[in-house]
Amino acid sequence: MSLLVVGSVALDSVQTPFGSYEDAIGGSALFFSYAARLLHPVQLVAVVGDDYPFDALARLAKQDVDISGIERQPGESFRWKGEYSYDLQHRETLETRLGVFADFEPKIPEAFRDARYVFLGNINPELQLSVLDQIHQPNLVACDTMNYWIHGTRDVLLEVMRRTDVLMVNDAEARELSGDWNVYRAARWIVEHGPSMVVIKQGVYGAVLLENGRIFYVPAFPLDDVFDPTGAGDAFAGGFMGHLARTDDLSAENLRRAMVYGAAMGSFAVERFSVERFDEIGPAEVTARVREFAELVRFEIEAEAEAVRSEE
Amino acid sequence: MSLLVVGSVALDSVQTPFGSYEDAIGGSALFFSYAARLLHPVQLVAVVGDDYPFDALARLAKQDVDISGIERQPGESFRWKGEYSYDLQHRETLETRLGVFADFEPKIPEAFRDARYVFLGNINPELQLSVLDQIHQPNLVACDTMNYWIHGTRDVLLEVMRRTDVLMVNDAEARELSGDWNVYRAARWIVEHGPSMVVIKQGVYGAVLLENGRIFYVPAFPLDDVFDPTGAGDAFAGGFMGHLARTDDLSAENLRRAMVYGAAMGSFAVERFSVERFDEIGPAEVTARVREFAELVRFEIEAEAEAVRSEE
Repeated sequence: MSLLVVGSVALDSVQTPFGSYEDAIGGSALFFSYAARLLHPVQLVAVVGDDYPFDALARLAKQDVDISGIERQPGESFRWKGEYSYDLQHRETLETRLGVFADFEPKIPEAFRDARYVFLGNINPELQLSVLDQIHQPNLVACDTMNYWIHGTRDVLLEVMRRTDVLMVNDAEARELSGDWNVYRAARWIVEHGPSMVVIKQGVYGAVLLENGRIFYVPAFPLDDVFDPTGAGDAFAGGFMGHLARTDDLSAENLRRAMVYGAAMGSFAVERFSVERFDEIGPAEVTARVREFAELVRFEIEAEAEAVRSEE
Repeated sequence: MSLLVVGSVALDSVQTPFGSYEDAIGGSALFFSYAARLLHPVQLVAVVGDDYPFDALARLAKQDVDISGIERQPGESFRWKGEYSYDLQHRETLETRLGVFADFEPKIPEAFRDARYVFLGNINPELQLSVLDQIHQPNLVACDTMNYWIHGTRDVLLEVMRRTDVLMVNDAEARELSGDWNVYRAARWIVEHGPSMVVIKQGVYGAVLLENGRIFYVPAFPLDDVFDPTGAGDAFAGGFMGHLARTDDLSAENLRRAMVYGAAMGSFAVERFSVERFDEIGPAEVTARVREFAELVRFEIEAEAEAVRSEE
């Protein structure tokens, strides 16, 4: 089932305690695509400047990513510069240069308009609405956002939410959006405002899915070395949506699996700088990691639970 | 199998955003006992002043807790006063009055010296050593500690660790003890210094078990309302050790189950002030919550993993 992502394709400059890099390929739609393509072909819509390293995009095009929806505009690509704290738990944006992204008006190619699975990366909610207006009949729409839009364009964001099936946000965004500190109450507030499902990403502490009143929890993968959290949330979204598009199954059981594929992709993203790790792995590594997740949380209670009951 | 706890029995005064209380019963050994007794009888060794509400202890004595190891000394009981931040994630100690606890020298009653499962609550490591000297042949010793001892009496603590099977600490303590920010590397540092197992408690984010090179992760139970985190870590220890003493089974499978019983008890602890929740529940509620944990993390990957493999 066709999978479409609309978002940023950017150049990132990042400082971490373990090293730094400049003008590496990044952006929400790029991280999403690098992860999702390991599970399912991707249609990518974005804008880049004429300074963008086209070989990187050409490489993606050979790897199940349809880049015909990427516009090249005269001018500078979107650039983001950030610095992480010593423990990688906090980051500060040092500079944002929108470049050609400032005037981005997503035009969905005719061939993409039948997309069944759609991910709206973190862009202006006005643009997210315009994307939805161009799509014929999606089976599932997932959407990311950020505090900037929650503050600045709340009404438009609420309109996007009414047309979204899965809102994917981090815990701070969920709290800010709902005005409730408790993430589970925040998640319920969100499903009362449109989306039938919410994914709350909690970084090194994993992610929570609320669907149909039920909560599913997937931990973050235990890693001895984390180099660069940039793009982890978008890689998570890529794993989640890639799995759903591949299986075309929205059962509760399969949504749980999608969460685990998301967590697996998020864990790969942070193991190297930029998208480097995704150039090293294939489907076999993804499968192996998903199996490790199963082992990480596996326990059996039946026998014990019976024993307790019989003592009562 | 006999289960012994040595630690503090105190009077807590606590301020939270949701209410406050004064001189409620508390302390590491008390929270441990309230939780563990739901799974297995407990032998409790501690000291209290002559101001301690003896009816609370008498009630425990009727509920599978042997309180014959509690000394009553003339003077004031140990008192702790603390205040939690608006999100309950941070707490400040406002006052600590050691009272009779200052001269506590644990004397293990003859009848308790054959204890097979021993929990050393967070007390001076010198006292923890003295307890171990009095125990004949424990099957498993678990130990808690805190930053104060990690700084102040590190060498003695390292000696305790050499005689401990399971170190149970929170993530900040694990980091401080090991000097390593990454909790998984910190856990491995700990097992290189004595304990064969480490439990790292992460509060609202769950807990990690490292045993035999394997990591098991149990989330915190999703609660809409958390009132008072006081004692949650000791209740976790009570669930963990209560389950092990009850089953007398140190297999990897059963240690995982013990983690879930620990997480269940931790979740009960925070649902009311002080130990109030434990007066409301019995084994049936514990069993029900353990089953909910199983549902919280349950997913099946087999079919999917095969599908990915066949595509390769």
